[in-house]
Amino acid sequence: MTFDVDETLKRISGKKGVKAVVIVNAEGAAIRSTLDHELTKQYGQLIASLVQQAKTAVKTLDDQNDLTFLRVRTKKHEIMIAPGILKIFIINIGRCILTIF
Amino acid sequence: MTFDVDETLKRISGKKGVKAVVIVNAEGAAIRSTLDHELTKQYGQLIASLVQQAKTAVKTLDDQNDLTFLRVRTKKHEIMIAPGILKIFIINIGRCILTIF
Repeated sequence: MTFDVDETLKRISGKKGVKAVVIVNAEGAAIRSTLDHELTKQYGQLIASLVQQAKTAVKTLDDQNDLTFLRVRTKKHEIMIAPGILKIFIINIGRCILTIF
Repeated sequence: MTFDVDETLKRISGKKGVKAVVIVNAEGAAIRSTLDHELTKQYGQLIASLVQQAKTAVKTLDDQNDLTFLRVRTKKHEIMIAPGILKIFIINIGRCILTIF
């Protein structure tokens, strides 16, 4: 499967409610971002570290399992993270309807 | 606002797709759980640590902001965490429809 970085950035950042998109490589360095340099660096480092801890926690609980998506909802916005070879951080002001409440 | 632990446990665990509910206190110790003792302890510790890191990351990025909800989607299930005085961990096999993709 090919992954067009610019196409992905354009597609996601154009969605309603999306405030910013940051795409980082496996080492946590941003390769594309709609945030400024300083914020991109901060988000990249903090979120990459959080994803790593989440991956470790999931594997510790069940080594046959793996993290596929992480959503960090805050008072101000929501950060959505799709971990993979390339990680996509999406800061979204929208709200997902919780299916279980 | 009062919080009826047993009522909450019953309400959430009865929802479609919910496999387990763990309610822990501020120190990370489980006060109610539908999992066995060992799994409850494992989940409690790992998820409480993850929540703490997420809270710290959110505060570091913006000290006026705060974590309100964390969702950890894995290949096998989804863990939903509502941090507060009491944390609720919900392991759900359901899938939330992503609003931005």
